[in-house]
Amino acid sequence: MSEQFRTQRRVEFCETDAAGIAHFSAFFTYMEQAEHALLRELGTSVVRHEGEAVVSWPRVSASCDYQGMVRFEQVLDIEVAVERIGGSSVAYQFRFSHEGRPVAQGKMVSVCCRIEPGQPPKSTPIAPELVARLRRFLVDTSSSASP
Amino acid sequence: MSEQFRTQRRVEFCETDAAGIAHFSAFFTYMEQAEHALLRELGTSVVRHEGEAVVSWPRVSASCDYQGMVRFEQVLDIEVAVERIGGSSVAYQFRFSHEGRPVAQGKMVSVCCRIEPGQPPKSTPIAPELVARLRRFLVDTSSSASP
Amino acid sequence: MSEQFRTQRRVEFCETDAAGIAHFSAFFTYMEQAEHALLRELGTSVVRHEGEAVVSWPRVSASCDYQGMVRFEQVLDIEVAVERIGGSSVAYQFRFSHEGRPVAQGKMVSVCCRIEPGQPPKSTPIAPELVARLRRFLVDTSSSASP
Amino acid sequence: MSEQFRTQRRVEFCETDAAGIAHFSAFFTYMEQAEHALLRELGTSVVRHEGEAVVSWPRVSASCDYQGMVRFEQVLDIEVAVERIGGSSVAYQFRFSHEGRPVAQGKMVSVCCRIEPGQPPKSTPIAPELVARLRRFLVDTSSSASP
Repeated sequence: MSEQFRTQRRVEFCETDAAGIAHFSAFFTYMEQAEHALLRELGTSVVRHEGEAVVSWPRVSASCDYQGMVRFEQVLDIEVAVERIGGSSVAYQFRFSHEGRPVAQGKMVSVCCRIEPGQPPKSTPIAPELVARLRRFLVDTSSSASP
Repeated sequence: MSEQFRTQRRVEFCETDAAGIAHFSAFFTYMEQAEHALLRELGTSVVRHEGEAVVSWPRVSASCDYQGMVRFEQVLDIEVAVERIGGSSVAYQFRFSHEGRPVAQGKMVSVCCRIEPGQPPKSTPIAPELVARLRRFLVDTSSSASP
Repeated sequence: MSEQFRTQRRVEFCETDAAGIAHFSAFFTYMEQAEHALLRELGTSVVRHEGEAVVSWPRVSASCDYQGMVRFEQVLDIEVAVERIGGSSVAYQFRFSHEGRPVAQGKMVSVCCRIEPGQPPKSTPIAPELVARLRRFLVDTSSSASP
Repeated sequence: MSEQFRTQRRVEFCETDAAGIAHFSAFFTYMEQAEHALLRELGTSVVRHEGEAVVSWPRVSASCDYQGMVRFEQVLDIEVAVERIGGSSVAYQFRFSHEGRPVAQGKMVSVCCRIEPGQPPKSTPIAPELVARLRRFLVDTSSSASP
């Protein structure tokens, strides 16, 4: 029932390491870039200015399990789904594969925050229109165990 | 009873992002660098050559929970402990703080692998001397719940 | 007379710094990625395997002059030209702009090297077919001063 | 006559690439980190807050010539000298070596800027006390050709 957001990312040379493969930390920047691409697809940005304030999405947690390796110039297929939408947070799931072979899967929880100049970030409710648009990618948990 | 390995890391400018803080992905490189410093402390390296083969430690999983923020030039105190030693894997725990304030905590599981030229990595038992040295940092799980 | 290779690159969040702009070091990875995209366009790769040997292109110099700034999610237009083709080296020129506004210009000299296992890289003549294809992007120096 | 500022940097695993060596772009972050360490040594920081304004040092140019390679866990010795102090700019020279073997040399020009909130950076004269302290590392150009 639910839809997946799909994007691709070529492994760049500076992301490989002396073991000849994409460095494990690169997958966290790939997840972030996929999250930002999804938000652009939904007509918004991960950083929005509202007068002097900024509305942004700091992460509270990130994790990744590695199942395979990818090398320089290989293209990763990235599927993004929304696991859960809270009052001010979104939990994303990511699946990375290369030519159908699983490479990694990860999770990231981002919290919608309002940041006034000189103040620490304060969590703020996600705009209802964005919640509605994010639902399009919400994992259908009724029929399947969440991964 | 158990000991913690302690190291420090200054937040470099190129690791900050437009939100003015250390980018969340930087913590994964901090964890890796702390793991490598620990292995050097124990008299070995994360990459060792044995004839034509390489013995290295690819990661199978990594995760981080963020509790606070750090800015450019702030110095992170990093505590590393060993949560579990398996036949060929080590699970590490990391705690990041700045001047006593918790910033993040993470986990990483690395697998000891032997890599012959042109072959995929194959897991291999951890050398008994290294197991003995790693035990020094093993979390005492008898008296406390693991974090 | 000469043609320019054109590519684009969106500034990712992890490439910005606490000054809110793309970090100056990111332009060197952009140049490298544009060089690699050009080589793919010409039907080759910056890393090719020939039996046990690898033919690759280490850099001998790189430089960049900054004229403007770019922020998160802005898209850079990148023009690549070939300034000079030597026996085993290629000098590239790069111009970065955002919506017509100049942002930076850089140069990079790469040397074609053959790397046998366990040996240091040795410069090697560029394959004649590749020289022929690279000429398509050679700056016409007869009619204009080189930038 | 002149003094050199010396610092060290271990090559981290995430800075190596699939060629097994420190990626060429890493040297630009090493230069920046050495510049920042020099400014800390002189009792200041590359980012200072003056009320609502920020005084910082954007780069106008950076370049590097590569003479050798360094691998994971090798320690670079970095020598920093000041080539020229202008009204609002400083030109730095960097020499990288590993166990006495030259690895790279680079240059970087930074401009002292005052950044008011919501305004583009404006170049501003370097504070006279900082000029006096920087002179300690000024290359003695009377007796030797500049490198």
